[in-house]
This record gives sequence, C-alpha cells and structure tokens, in this order.
Amino acid sequence: MNPQLDLIKSSIKSIPNYPKEGIIFRDITSLLEVPEAFQATIDAIVAEFKDKGITKVVGTESRGFIFGAPVALALGVPFVLVRKPNKLPRETISQSYTLEYGEDTLEIHTDSIQAGDNVLILDDLLATGGTVEATVKLIRRLNGNVEHAAFVIWLPVLGGAERLEKMGVKSFSLVSFDGH
Amino acid sequence: MNPQLDLIKSSIKSIPNYPKEGIIFRDITSLLEVPEAFQATIDAIVAEFKDKGITKVVGTESRGFIFGAPVALALGVPFVLVRKPNKLPRETISQSYTLEYGEDTLEIHTDSIQAGDNVLILDDLLATGGTVEATVKLIRRLNGNVEHAAFVIWLPVLGGAERLEKMGVKSFSLVSFDGH
Repeated sequence: MNPQLDLIKSSIKSIPNYPKEGIIFRDITSLLEVPEAFQATIDAIVAEFKDKGITKVVGTESRGFIFGAPVALALGVPFVLVRKPNKLPRETISQSYTLEYGEDTLEIHTDSIQAGDNVLILDDLLATGGTVEATVKLIRRLNGNVEHAAFVIWLPVLGGAERLEKMGVKSFSLVSFDGH
Repeated sequence: MNPQLDLIKSSIKSIPNYPKEGIIFRDITSLLEVPEAFQATIDAIVAEFKDKGITKVVGTESRGFIFGAPVALALGVPFVLVRKPNKLPRETISQSYTLEYGEDTLEIHTDSIQAGDNVLILDDLLATGGTVEATVKLIRRLNGNVEHAAFVIWLPVLGGAERLEKMGVKSFSLVSFDGH
C-alpha cells in the first residue's frame, strides 16, 4: 500500500453490527471529514481514468454523487445522475433490480447519454454489484458504452467484481476490506 | 449578469408542471451536464467564501452533496453530511421540520461538528428554507456557528432568505427565478 491509500483506508471508520447484527459497516462519512484523504481519493480515481477517453461520469444516488461530482469536474466531462424513482424531472427510463429482500428501481434521463459515449460509473462501495449492474443496463439501453466502474471501497467476498466482469465492465477500487 | 452567471442560468432547464400542475421545476441536472457551467458554479461559490474563515461545509441530502463535496474540497475543509433518518451509521441527533403536507426529519453525526466550527451550508436551491432551518438547528445544537448558507438557485417569492436572515444566517445564491 502507498501512503495515500493508507490514509484513505485509515480514514474509513468501521461500525460493527450496523445496520444489523453481524455486518461491519464501512463508513465513508469519516473519510469526507479528512480533507487530505477525500482529496487523495478523488486524485487517485482521476489519475486512473484521465487518459481512458471517458466522455461522461455517472453517479448513483446518493453516495455516488459525493465522489462522482468532483471526478467529473476534474475530468472536465458531464456529470449524469442515476436516481431512485420519481426524482428526475425530464423523460426517463427505469431499471429494476433485486435486493436481498425485495426489489428496487433506478432511473436515468433519456437525453443524458448519447450513442458512443464512454461512461465511467462512480459509486462509494462495490458489494454484490446489484446497483451497478442496473446502472450499466440503463446506460447501454441508451447506446452508451460502459467499460469501467470506480469505487472507493471494495468488499471482494460479495462477488461484485466478478459480476461486473461478466458484463464486460472492469471495476477499479482504492481499498478493500474482508467480510461484508 | 456576468457571462459566467449567464452560462449557469441558461444551463438550468425549466420543466413546467413538475412535480405538479402550476409548478415550474428548476432542473440542476442539466447544469451538471455542462462541464464549464458546473465548474463555474463551484468556482463562484468558492470565490465568495474562501476568505470567510469557513472550517466545515455541510451538504444536505441529496442534491446538496453534489455541490457541497467540490466546494469542501476546494476550500480544503471537512465535508459533513446531513441525511434523512437512519442513513448515518454513527451516533446522531435529529431535527424535524414541517413540509407543505406533513413533516420530515434530518440527522447529523454528533461528532461531525465541534464547538467553534464556522460552518457553510450548501444546497442546490433556496425555496421556503425549511430544510436549511432544520440544518442550522442541528449544527447549533452541536455548538457550531452558522452565518452562511450557499445555493445555486434562489426562488425569492417563497421567503427563504428572510426566514434565514431572522435566524442570523446570510444566504448567498448564484441565480434567481421568478415564481415557484
């Protein structure tokens, strides 16, 4: 590990038994409260993607907004929101996906992605990959290309990286934690 | 208006009769999709506050995250989240506030604000000021100072600026629109 990644990882607090017994919650709010660590997070993601021809950054509601906005600004490309239902005011398409219990839905504006766009998806954490998979589907239905998704935290045991790989999406994460 | 503010205002789409008849919705997602306009937005807010001794930026869920994160990074200060209930994993305090119909609640981590902090609140839009008032109360209950709140959009007719002024909070907005 390099010192910047050490700083990032040590700025993420671990909350045992949240939101339920047996889960260790990895808390990015503590990272945001260490300015050098938050800046190092954005810099590391931007360094990885600045020469990869990215034309748009997509952030998923709501923690993806926190990292997606600064990355889009630094790359100088449009920042596009993927949101929960009934939050986007223009014409949208929807994609449902399965959760541990039940189902959820994400939406994107139809005019936010153009054919040929090379999209980078940003979210705080890669766990099972369910929300990212739904986001990839939304972008591809609008004829955008998605080869890359970036995360601050990766929980390898939950299989999200393999799930994205099967869709042709490479995941890039700054730090990983055992368990889930 | 200067050219930068013109660019910002013209990048905000107006959606008539959304979310209901008679309302013109001012859409910041279109602003985020014009990189020069999004960057100009952040630059204008940072220019206003860089010499005001701000020690923390607080962003309210979820559009406040989009503008608050880049402003906190540029000011080099911690970024603190104010969220809907049961989203923050550490110890929190809550503040309820009245909506047009019913009530809503916001939360903040108790260890995110220290006595003597000079906090800048960031949100996308100043309407009636209800969510900002609740955010000010949360910060002051933790003994933080709040003299400033910044917005991209201001709807003067709804009285939010006067409501904040009565609490001793000056509002700063980049562009305003008639109506609501």
